Amino acid sequence: MTRFDVTILGCGSAMPTTLHNPPSQLVELNEKLFMIDCGEGTQLQMRRYKARMGKLLALFISHLHGDHIFGLPGLISTLSLLGRTDELHIYAHREIDAMLKPLLIYMGNHISFRIRVHPLNPREKEVIYENKTIRISSFPLKHRIDTNGFLFEEKEPLRHIIREMIGLYNIPIREIAAIKAGANFVTGDGTLIPNSTLTRPAPPPRRYAYCSDTVYAPEIIPYIEGVDLLYHEATFAESELNRAAETYHSTARQAAVIAAAAGVKKLMIGHFSSRYNELDTLLNEARAVFSDTELADEGKIVSL
Amino acid sequence: MTRFDVTILGCGSAMPTTLHNPPSQLVELNEKLFMIDCGEGTQLQMRRYKARMGKLLALFISHLHGDHIFGLPGLISTLSLLGRTDELHIYAHREIDAMLKPLLIYMGNHISFRIRVHPLNPREKEVIYENKTIRISSFPLKHRIDTNGFLFEEKEPLRHIIREMIGLYNIPIREIAAIKAGANFVTGDGTLIPNSTLTRPAPPPRRYAYCSDTVYAPEIIPYIEGVDLLYHEATFAESELNRAAETYHSTARQAAVIAAAAGVKKLMIGHFSSRYNELDTLLNEARAVFSDTELADEGKIVSL
Repeated sequence: MTRFDVTILGCGSAMPTTLHNPPSQLVELNEKLFMIDCGEGTQLQMRRYKARMGKLLALFISHLHGDHIFGLPGLISTLSLLGRTDELHIYAHREIDAMLKPLLIYMGNHISFRIRVHPLNPREKEVIYENKTIRISSFPLKHRIDTNGFLFEEKEPLRHIIREMIGLYNIPIREIAAIKAGANFVTGDGTLIPNSTLTRPAPPPRRYAYCSDTVYAPEIIPYIEGVDLLYHEATFAESELNRAAETYHSTARQAAVIAAAAGVKKLMIGHFSSRYNELDTLLNEARAVFSDTELADEGKIVSL
Repeated sequence: MTRFDVTILGCGSAMPTTLHNPPSQLVELNEKLFMIDCGEGTQLQMRRYKARMGKLLALFISHLHGDHIFGLPGLISTLSLLGRTDELHIYAHREIDAMLKPLLIYMGNHISFRIRVHPLNPREKEVIYENKTIRISSFPLKHRIDTNGFLFEEKEPLRHIIREMIGLYNIPIREIAAIKAGANFVTGDGTLIPNSTLTRPAPPPRRYAYCSDTVYAPEIIPYIEGVDLLYHEATFAESELNRAAETYHSTARQAAVIAAAAGVKKLMIGHFSSRYNELDTLLNEARAVFSDTELADEGKIVSL
């Protein structure tokens, strides 16, 4: 199975601390490297965890609050100093142009590559990136400004051909793609070998959903139903329920209620408020509702 | 003697590494806290070294290359989240306005304090900040874009009154300020006591100069003559002499030549290229010319 890894570069919130960096993650999927959000210091976190900067294909920015974007200028500058020539794709809300341009102009270094901004639709779900094997969608979250979540999916993989059958029935190479796609095979003497004899079902496609920042919003459940891993913000403990609502953030318990209702396989909570020096309360409050919860942490890698 | 400390928050250059953060320093002088340059991650470095963010009075930005400014938005955002109300003074080249404004607009949080930008004069030396006891000047360096160095000086301190003389001659409190400033004292019976009997000379005023980024430029020597500490950039070793000239940076040896010619008391070199994993070569090349040289390092504090 190809690699499908989520690496946490930062899981703090607006005010970074020595415990948690501002939000950023890497998603490595089918040999492609994607980044979600890019808080201040993200390029250093990439170095710390030995991420391969050269492989970075696209950035997905959930919303334009500082803690999710202040690392962009430095990252862009460093990619340019490293001599990148491949276009860099940034999926973000339209207003990012006005923020990036003045900084880029004064960067002093000519940027060695083109930056292409793809505006996100803050109102409904849209497929924003697609190739033969993967699909990435954005969908609306509910925060103080336009904010989108992201869904990373493998496409329905092809069935696996059983190696021994190729020799047994003298299957020519040109037939193999069709058989993987579900075709039967007819031997030289006219015998039909059903596909189910020749192949094993593919593993189910894996899916990862990122939901940060957002207030408790059951309307996002249809977008994330049954994912293998849900990252959901959990800025506050339940004792700060009112503050969570006022600031359009979630409590750990609310993240778990969403995870349970959406029937996800695993929940990871993050975007922790700087007020928490230890996170046991948040973890326990979430686990009381959804047991398969874990805390995000800098450097943590979840392999799907 | 009051505190006059320079704390290195970052002494790397354009490309930050896990060894060195981008440029930033704190100067604490007479209970006031100043910052020079503010590369990405500076606010985190302040936390790491337990700097008192609330005491920060003003920022001095040498020039508008990314590695010297990308930490500004995050720092401003955090100061605001901490509830700062005091005006923040930023001394920088005029173009900083165009870079900061769009980022501030989208910060999402209302900024809780006013930011006042004071444009630097890139052509000649100017006093840019002054109070009763200290004076800060900027002066031109020579880099690819307008760049200024900074000079932090104590003003000529008052003489120290010798405590025993107050009782001996029955000196009234209202006379003490004048005596500290150099006046003689006439006793009740008309005897003139010369100031030299009543006071000890003050320690000489201390001075710190910051010169980064700059190509080797002997014309800066008059601005920094005899300072107690000179911070001078030393991006490269002597083997990269041509590259230094091309990029308007200095070698460690060139920094030492400037220090020697200016008769400074101590040299600290920094702004190290990311190509150096160890800095012995730079230190040795500088010390061969000016023995009282030391390497900058994150967290290092020099007390003047």
